[in-house]
Order: sequence, then structure tokens, then C-alpha cells
Amino acid sequence: MKYNAIYGQSGGPTSIINSSFFGVIKECKKHKNKINQLFIMKNGIDGLINNNLINVNTLSKKDINLLKCTPSAFCGSIRKKLLEPSLKDKEYLKILSTLKANNIRYIFLNGGNDSMDTALKLAKFFEMVEYTCFVIGIPKTIDNDLLFTDHTPGYGSAAKFIANTMQCLTYDNECYSKGRVNIVEIMGRDTGWLTASSILAIKNDCAPDLIYVPEVDFTIESFLKDVQAIYKKKKRALIAVSEGIHDKNGKLILQSSTTDAFNHTQLGGVAYTLSQIVQKELGIPTRAIELSILQRSFAPLISKVDQVEAINCGRTAVRLALNNETCKMVTMMRATKKNYKIKYSCQDIKEIANNIKYLDKCYINRKKNNINKSFLNYIEPLVNGKTKNQSTNGLYDFSKKLHN
Amino acid sequence: MKYNAIYGQSGGPTSIINSSFFGVIKECKKHKNKINQLFIMKNGIDGLINNNLINVNTLSKKDINLLKCTPSAFCGSIRKKLLEPSLKDKEYLKILSTLKANNIRYIFLNGGNDSMDTALKLAKFFEMVEYTCFVIGIPKTIDNDLLFTDHTPGYGSAAKFIANTMQCLTYDNECYSKGRVNIVEIMGRDTGWLTASSILAIKNDCAPDLIYVPEVDFTIESFLKDVQAIYKKKKRALIAVSEGIHDKNGKLILQSSTTDAFNHTQLGGVAYTLSQIVQKELGIPTRAIELSILQRSFAPLISKVDQVEAINCGRTAVRLALNNETCKMVTMMRATKKNYKIKYSCQDIKEIANNIKYLDKCYINRKKNNINKSFLNYIEPLVNGKTKNQSTNGLYDFSKKLHN
Repeated sequence: MKYNAIYGQSGGPTSIINSSFFGVIKECKKHKNKINQLFIMKNGIDGLINNNLINVNTLSKKDINLLKCTPSAFCGSIRKKLLEPSLKDKEYLKILSTLKANNIRYIFLNGGNDSMDTALKLAKFFEMVEYTCFVIGIPKTIDNDLLFTDHTPGYGSAAKFIANTMQCLTYDNECYSKGRVNIVEIMGRDTGWLTASSILAIKNDCAPDLIYVPEVDFTIESFLKDVQAIYKKKKRALIAVSEGIHDKNGKLILQSSTTDAFNHTQLGGVAYTLSQIVQKELGIPTRAIELSILQRSFAPLISKVDQVEAINCGRTAVRLALNNETCKMVTMMRATKKNYKIKYSCQDIKEIANNIKYLDKCYINRKKNNINKSFLNYIEPLVNGKTKNQSTNGLYDFSKKLHN
Repeated sequence: MKYNAIYGQSGGPTSIINSSFFGVIKECKKHKNKINQLFIMKNGIDGLINNNLINVNTLSKKDINLLKCTPSAFCGSIRKKLLEPSLKDKEYLKILSTLKANNIRYIFLNGGNDSMDTALKLAKFFEMVEYTCFVIGIPKTIDNDLLFTDHTPGYGSAAKFIANTMQCLTYDNECYSKGRVNIVEIMGRDTGWLTASSILAIKNDCAPDLIYVPEVDFTIESFLKDVQAIYKKKKRALIAVSEGIHDKNGKLILQSSTTDAFNHTQLGGVAYTLSQIVQKELGIPTRAIELSILQRSFAPLISKVDQVEAINCGRTAVRLALNNETCKMVTMMRATKKNYKIKYSCQDIKEIANNIKYLDKCYINRKKNNINKSFLNYIEPLVNGKTKNQSTNGLYDFSKKLHN
């Protein structure tokens, strides 16, 4: 018996999530004997609830190929937390109705730990109603904070953008005999993986002088001392700071008042806050630089390794589902210690959903204001390789947008 | 008789100024019969004053080749305004002494309109003291605000970065069923050339919904009306805004209190100010995005046309000097209306220094909140072509930094 499959994206977009979609499409095509049609759920779980599906057959070959270089979430994303599964919950019943109406028995959900929460709840619900359906999670997050996987697709490309940005900022800041204190704010929520990636620029003598991650309690006093010491020596400084740094009581350095559906605080503005403090307390010229959306969307600079791995994660998800696995997330492990090679495997989603993998303490320096060089062994392989992105008249080519 | 030559950089750095330096080096080598040695003045005019010179022969072949892909100002830059030329001014006397001591009779100064002010004063002083020395200006500014040249080296690469950024931001913002109002702050000082370049993204349906340039007086009332109309229709918006927008009295929307040596206000923070106003007045979720230093330094994405033209401007400067021209700046004119081709010429620096070329009014739409499509004819040729930048382990290769 042949069934249909469905693929959806949720959470914050990355420059590489659509590569995983590409992988799912290719692998589904390869298994035409088992999978009939592949659908997109438009805007993640909302598409399943509202029966808002798109048949992948309607996409042009050109747009499918361009998915590999297209940032954001091609299928539309969402930040939505399902209630606990229940036979009375209208949303779950609507999802079931959509699946049955479209003969869907394979679900691929591409996202971070919040999306895995959705996948977990779906799988639980299917067990309750005895609907045979294979739910596989495909990892995606620039934050690199998912457990049981060496790293996550999206992280390498964001790290590559950040490292190259550090180089450009350092060169720029060194052209005057007296520079500024540039404070660069980097995403990553509660973890410092992404901020730590800025150390990659050390190869060209452009790594930040100071790196602050949320795994270390932040104090303004130590920070000002650190900055003063660097500025005295170099007449300039480059500082990388995680959006999520907080004091010993867990209070964010910049507490914002808005929260999303998963009760996460919308972060941002730490660099500005710190730059104002440095100017006021030390009288040193500063500049706050937020890498903002570019770090998760700057497709012209994606990492080839990241792209290939994202595709492979998509392909692996299809294979797992066809192997009757369910409620599993695709994981990546380093096959050998010597040469970088990834072995694709899987892990129970219930171990991953709503959990956080923090930056290993071993990577944080003794003074807790920088990252050890040993981190390079971990991160260097992830940013390797140039993709053959096409551009027309100076503009990089992306898949044509789906209409909202 | 063979003389030596000297090259210097000043003003804000760009991702392409070192290509002009590359052009100067190559052309000087070609005229070994007339030019003996080529020196760098370290940190612009300060290098001449303090006899802080570097012989170009000390640079490796590899570093010279990489200049074409290296952002910032390789030779060191400065923002310094010379006093009016006088026989009693110590700085001028020190400059003369440096030149004589090093047998220098050719000076190439690479910069914007402030740098042309320096070139003009030097030429005037040499006339006063009857020192035969040929001073040629090489244009450089992402602001594109120099008179008598169709455009300036640096502008095309900055425009290319901005246009591609607009694409990435638009794709990112369209992935949720409800987006944000993203307000992107773009450099350009008193002119809107750079902000206008964001319209390039129109080809992929990613141009900003609203574009505000300093050539139009800004009012918060019209702005809020514009934003509300767009948001109602699209449930999101992309807005490009020049750092230098001001009200009808010339008051900047965000007045900063610091000024540089040329009495220019240090701009920045307009996007943040406007985003706060939109949130407060309209209750719409916003995000302020400053492209900051990246727009002038993001070397991985430079325009091939811009790179070639910057090199040619450097080469032309050397030819002009050897032709006994002085106090001239290299200019670029479109040779034909049909096909894009540049003719290199020159113009008296006194016509250019301290003047500003504003964005032509014909490019601003009737409602004064966007740019007309006719602007594409002007800008499209400038962002064309991909450079063959090399990268190692994901990091773009730059020339090794000179020590400060």
C-alpha cells in the first residue's frame, strides 16, 4: 500500500532549512514505490490543522533546485505550541482529519527543540487514536542547542557568516590609528555556541578580543575591566556578546518585555546597552552592531558542508520513516576522531524536545571572557566549502516565494 | 629624471578602495622609466606629516594580489582637516620635508570629498612654495556623493550588499503568516544614493515597500500613515531609511551629539527611533536593523564591475600625473547610452572638494516615499559580476594587515 507524506517547517528560519526540504523531496522521489505524493504543510502545524497543503508536484524543477540556496522557511513557518494531546482537542482532530483526507502516513517536521515538542505531541496523539503514522524530526537551528546530535544544520552557515563578518569588522576598525570598541550582538538564545563561533576568525588575526556567552554569569564590573585593559593595549576592541547573557540571578542584561508562544523572551539590544555603559563609564568611543536577521538568512555565504548535511538529514528522515521508525529525530555524529565524517543516526524525540544543549564548559577560557582554541577542532569542519550559488545581475537567485 | 610616488587613503573605508591601490601599484610598475619607487603614506596625510612611509616593495606579491578583495583601508586612514595652506604652518612644512627627503613628486590621494579638500590644499601649498609635484585624487565613497563623476568606486559593492541583504530580509520576514515592520538603516550621510540602491531587489520581488532619503523632508505623520497602509495590506513591511533623514528645518530625526574633524555629525540610530515610534503609535511589531559597518566592508560580496573600475581609477591617476596633470580627480563617465561602458577622465579638484552630489529628484517617486524604477537603469550595471574571491576553511582571504 502506498501512502502520502508531508513536510513542514517551524521555528526561526535559517539559511539552510530549505536544503533539508530538498533532501526530503529527492529521497521521496527515490521511493516512489512506497511514497505516492509529498505535500507541504503551509506554515508548519497550522497547515495541518487548517488543511492548507501544497503538493510538491506543483513546484517547478528550477525552484526545487534553488531551495538549496534559498534562505528563510520556504514552506512558511510558525511558532505555535500545541496543547497536550487529547481526544477532545479540536486542533488534534482537525490534524487527524487532514491526514486521513490526504492519505498521509509520513510526517517530516523540520525545526528546533520547540518543533520537536510538536512532533512528540503528534506522535503521542497518533498512539492514542491508533492512527499509524511515522513522525520524524529533522534538526534545524542556528543556535546548535539540540541534544544528541554533534551539531545542527544551520549552525555552520551562521557561524561562517559570523566569522567572515568578524574579519570585515576587524579590518575596518583597524584602519584608523585609534579605533572603537565594537560590540557585536549574536543570536543563540540561552546558549553560546553561535557567539563562540566568532573565534574562527583567529586564523586571520581577527577573532574578538572578548567573547561573552550565556553559560557564564555576566557582571558589568568585570566587563568594564576587561574592555579597559584591551583598549589600553590596542586602542580598539572587538567584542562578541550573546543576546542571552545574564547576571548571576538569571536576569538578562537587557530584559525585553515581549515573549513568544513558547514563553521565550524576545531578545535584542544587549550590544547597545553595553556600548552605552562603556561610553559613559570609560569615555571610550563605541559602536553597537547587531547581526540581527542576517546571521540566520545570509544565503550568499552558506557553508557547503552545512548545505550537504542539511540535505542528508532530509534524506535520512525519509529513510527512517520508511523503516517504520517514529517519534525520532535525525542526528549527526562524527564517525572518526581524525578525519571529519558524519554518520547519520536518530534519537527518541522525547529526549530532545524542550531540552537544551549548552556550550561545553571546556571551551570557555579560565577568565570566562573568551573561548579556548580547542573549540576550533569542533567548529572548523562545519564552515568548510563554498557553494555554487548562482546570481543574476548581482542578485543571488532564490526559489520563487510561495504566496502567503 | 626619475621621481618617486606616494599613495594614501583617507576618510571612511570601503570594500573596494584597496583595488584602487592595486591599480596604482600596477600602473607605477608599468612606468618604471619615470617612477622609481612607490610609497604608502601610513594613515593618510598623517603619514606625510610624520614621515611615516612604507615602501610598496616590502609588500609580498600575494598580499598585493589580495588587495583586490581586502576591505577597509589597507594603508591606514584618517579623518583630518588641514588648515589653509601657509608658509608658516608646521604641518605643511613637515609634509614638504618628507616629500623632498624621499624625492617624491607624485601624490595619489584616495578618498571622498573631504579627502579632495586635502588634495586641493596640498596643491595650493606646492604652488606657494614652487615645489613641482603632481597631486591626483582617486574617488572613493560608498555614499556616491562626488560631483563630476557618474558614480564612485565603492558605491556598487555597497549597493550589491544592500540589495542582497534586502532579499534575505524579505524572505525571512515572509515566512510567518504575520511578519514585522523591518526598518533598515542605511549609510550615505546627506544623500540617498545608497538607500535608493535597495530598489535593486525589486527583480526578485524584495524591494522595500517604503524608501526614505535625505533629499526629502521627513515627517513622522506621513511615515506612520505610509506604514499603516502597507501593514494593513501585507501584514508586514520592509522599510529602507537613510541615516541622514531630517525634518523640514534640517533637524535630524535622531540627533547625535558627536561630530568628527570635518564637523560632520556621527549618524546612527534612526531605525531604532522609528521602530519605537511605530510600536508605540501603531502597536505593530517592528525590528530595527542597522547595516552598520558591513555595508562598507563586506568584501565577500563585492561587485566585479566596481572592482575593475576601482582598479582603473587607480591606473588612470598614475597616467594623469605622468601627463603632468595636477589638482585633478579621476572621473568616470558613461561612454554610450546603450551599452554600459566607462570612459575615464578627470576634473579640477576645486570643483569637487567639499561639495555634495545629491540624488537626482527625478528618481524620487511622486509620494516621496519610494524610488522610481527608472533608477534601475542607473544602478544595475554597477552591481554586476562576481569576483573570484578565494577563501580558506570558510574564511575569505585578505591581504595581511599592516601594523598600526
